[in-house]
Amino acid sequence: MRGKDLVSVDDLSRADIELILDRAESFAEVSVREIKKVPTLRGRTIVNLFYEASTRTSSSFELAAKRLSADVVNIKSVGSSVDKGESLKDTVQTLSAYDPAAIVIRSPHAGAAGLVARWSAASVINAGDGKHEHPTQALLDVYTLRRRLGALEGVKIWIVGDVLHSRVARSGVLAFSRMGCSVTVCGPPTLIPRGVEALGCDVRWSLEGIEEANVIYALRMQNERMTGSFVPSLREYAARYQIDGRRLAPGQLLMHPGPVNRGVELAGEVVDSPQALIVQQVESGVVVRMAVLYELLTGGGPDTGSRFARDTAAGEPQPA
Amino acid sequence: MRGKDLVSVDDLSRADIELILDRAESFAEVSVREIKKVPTLRGRTIVNLFYEASTRTSSSFELAAKRLSADVVNIKSVGSSVDKGESLKDTVQTLSAYDPAAIVIRSPHAGAAGLVARWSAASVINAGDGKHEHPTQALLDVYTLRRRLGALEGVKIWIVGDVLHSRVARSGVLAFSRMGCSVTVCGPPTLIPRGVEALGCDVRWSLEGIEEANVIYALRMQNERMTGSFVPSLREYAARYQIDGRRLAPGQLLMHPGPVNRGVELAGEVVDSPQALIVQQVESGVVVRMAVLYELLTGGGPDTGSRFARDTAAGEPQPA
Amino acid sequence: MRGKDLVSVDDLSRADIELILDRAESFAEVSVREIKKVPTLRGRTIVNLFYEASTRTSSSFELAAKRLSADVVNIKSVGSSVDKGESLKDTVQTLSAYDPAAIVIRSPHAGAAGLVARWSAASVINAGDGKHEHPTQALLDVYTLRRRLGALEGVKIWIVGDVLHSRVARSGVLAFSRMGCSVTVCGPPTLIPRGVEALGCDVRWSLEGIEEANVIYALRMQNERMTGSFVPSLREYAARYQIDGRRLAPGQLLMHPGPVNRGVELAGEVVDSPQALIVQQVESGVVVRMAVLYELLTGGGPDTGSRFARDTAAGEPQPA
Repeated sequence: MRGKDLVSVDDLSRADIELILDRAESFAEVSVREIKKVPTLRGRTIVNLFYEASTRTSSSFELAAKRLSADVVNIKSVGSSVDKGESLKDTVQTLSAYDPAAIVIRSPHAGAAGLVARWSAASVINAGDGKHEHPTQALLDVYTLRRRLGALEGVKIWIVGDVLHSRVARSGVLAFSRMGCSVTVCGPPTLIPRGVEALGCDVRWSLEGIEEANVIYALRMQNERMTGSFVPSLREYAARYQIDGRRLAPGQLLMHPGPVNRGVELAGEVVDSPQALIVQQVESGVVVRMAVLYELLTGGGPDTGSRFARDTAAGEPQPA
Repeated sequence: MRGKDLVSVDDLSRADIELILDRAESFAEVSVREIKKVPTLRGRTIVNLFYEASTRTSSSFELAAKRLSADVVNIKSVGSSVDKGESLKDTVQTLSAYDPAAIVIRSPHAGAAGLVARWSAASVINAGDGKHEHPTQALLDVYTLRRRLGALEGVKIWIVGDVLHSRVARSGVLAFSRMGCSVTVCGPPTLIPRGVEALGCDVRWSLEGIEEANVIYALRMQNERMTGSFVPSLREYAARYQIDGRRLAPGQLLMHPGPVNRGVELAGEVVDSPQALIVQQVESGVVVRMAVLYELLTGGGPDTGSRFARDTAAGEPQPA
Repeated sequence: MRGKDLVSVDDLSRADIELILDRAESFAEVSVREIKKVPTLRGRTIVNLFYEASTRTSSSFELAAKRLSADVVNIKSVGSSVDKGESLKDTVQTLSAYDPAAIVIRSPHAGAAGLVARWSAASVINAGDGKHEHPTQALLDVYTLRRRLGALEGVKIWIVGDVLHSRVARSGVLAFSRMGCSVTVCGPPTLIPRGVEALGCDVRWSLEGIEEANVIYALRMQNERMTGSFVPSLREYAARYQIDGRRLAPGQLLMHPGPVNRGVELAGEVVDSPQALIVQQVESGVVVRMAVLYELLTGGGPDTGSRFARDTAAGEPQPA
């Protein structure tokens, strides 16, 4: 991989993405062992710096780091004011003094992860920065879909919902299109950002034509938008954009970044259907984040393969 | 042990309880070593999912898991709404995607642990679910008392206080009576649930006759009940039910699940008396929870003994 | 070292301080390795009990303990009422039942750490107790300055700001003067405690004469004081006491315990100047706390040297 950080999917070439996906496949083998752990990052420190509440992303990164044998320090400052301007810089300088191998950061402010990457010598991984990007989510989505379909070239994906406020949508469009998918974003005109086509996608304002999609990717309707001025009412939103049993055609796959608002963007019946990959997406989170940490922190290079083989050798006593 | 989970004391036969107590005795030997750790659960993941504030139970489970060398992920969502209905199911599905060996759950809702056990392939341990049960508290109480008395058959125990709202009382009545104790519950009529005799205990509405008890088990008076309609006043409650130096007879033992409201259910003088087993109960918490995790996660079976001997062998370098 | 605890700098002789600084130097070598970890405290438990919000101190202690391979249990009870009177005692009894090697405590109440040290058989480390002391901060300050200057005898230090409410100032005066420095405290008369000279320092009410200082140590202006009755206005405080580029003479060093209020006690220009040791202070935090834990928990003694050499031997597989 090219840089020390993962701030945006734009940092990644198609080859980089494939490298991460292949590494994640290897970690998937480790994850079904009883001892789900490799010694790769023993004695190295990973800081999880979360300025927004998060259960699944923060626990997924924490577990990925622990399964690589790193020492993990979790810092949660929800509602704190320290994530603004100079304060964030001071916090990063403080944390950098610990010489961490990586800082994983989630912030409500777009661009925060990029600033941290500039200020710190550590590898910085963007775990979501405002409306900007959430690249590991996109990578785990691509990984999940590749596992299911084998190849992604030419696959048609519709991303449906509040695209305007969604870092998941933004990173997803970039990643899926880079992998050769044909991506369409769909939602109420008030919730589609102007000029989104420049990311490499088509735009639709209604579900008409969604039967062409191989994959429907529904976005979470954020609570704070539900009663806002973006949609006339939740009921009307659901009537026009909810994916339910009638709208999900046989053979189509369904994805969602979680947590689902049942009865809003998805009907309960489709959440639990075998066409849904939602649980697989969560499973993918740990191995894909292990792969990202591995590739960023071990520096890749020609001997990565043999190092990886040694670290993941099963059956021998590993001091992890 | 019979099932994959520990949701209720009712899941346990007397033989199961004795198996856990004996295993806990073995871990008590490990706990006095300088290196209080065995490699048994290395590379396995334990999720602590706490929807209620808790210092002692959550830290006790965390420490038990770490002393078994597991990777621990703590998730605390006090005040969050995710513990209701479908949301809990989604959370459990998310966590199950990490393939944890065990999920330890505390919830304000009776029955939550049972639901989680049904939804997850992991071993689920109930760390308190509403007014329903708190089985590891009962096991550590039984363990503490057996350590002190040697045998429990025929021991007379009075459980005094707010039995109605107490999961500790409910699990305690089941566990002590299963071990052959004679159990009496005692408290104001408004705080004794109707039909509690069916659990296998006698009922008293005053402390009259408590001198027959070998053990007085005082319940914590929950703050939120103190000013409610259940008792006329705290002062009157204390006058009628507080255990103090006059009411604790020589030779009687005193137990309490902690934290104590000094001056309410217990006078300070008895908390610090040598008849009180309160500190020992906390000590027992770690080893009993290690034992529960050990029995649920290693599957027992004929070679458990030799595995245990190997895992707990002192003096050799253990990759834990 | 003399006692089991580190509650006050007054507990430490000059020889004790030098022992800790030398040990910290050794850990500084470990900290630049890829594997920043030694097995010394494997299988031992360290409890971090924080009754005040803290990012840098709590994460620094957590990391120090993990780099010594201890199992760490973090307990944060900000806003809780359990830190008062008997409740603190009960909490300590609970935690002591886990037989921790050390309890690290931060409390808003002066004297809390001393009480915990009396109640617990564990080594107790004061991580800040109200306005009383913060001894590891003083040790890391002394360590940082000794690293930069080589020797501290006769070095002139001015501590500037809200001395009245500052545990950092109190511990700093004690530690720097014990190491042979000449210490002056400086601030508005309302923010200098009466009788502070007894700690071994001079007192000034204005910055006049500060050009004699080799080191200016600026204190954080606590937010809650800023709008209080202690200073007429922030603007006036900054005009009279802020260290900026004009007041920091060439060759003078600048220290601050962090986090800095830029534009209040320090101008941004000096924070980022090469004369500032602020980042180095944070770096020192981890190795100094490792050294304190090491000295308190391994008991020192004649074979400490060879044990240390064994524990920190690089290049061999350590089961940490």
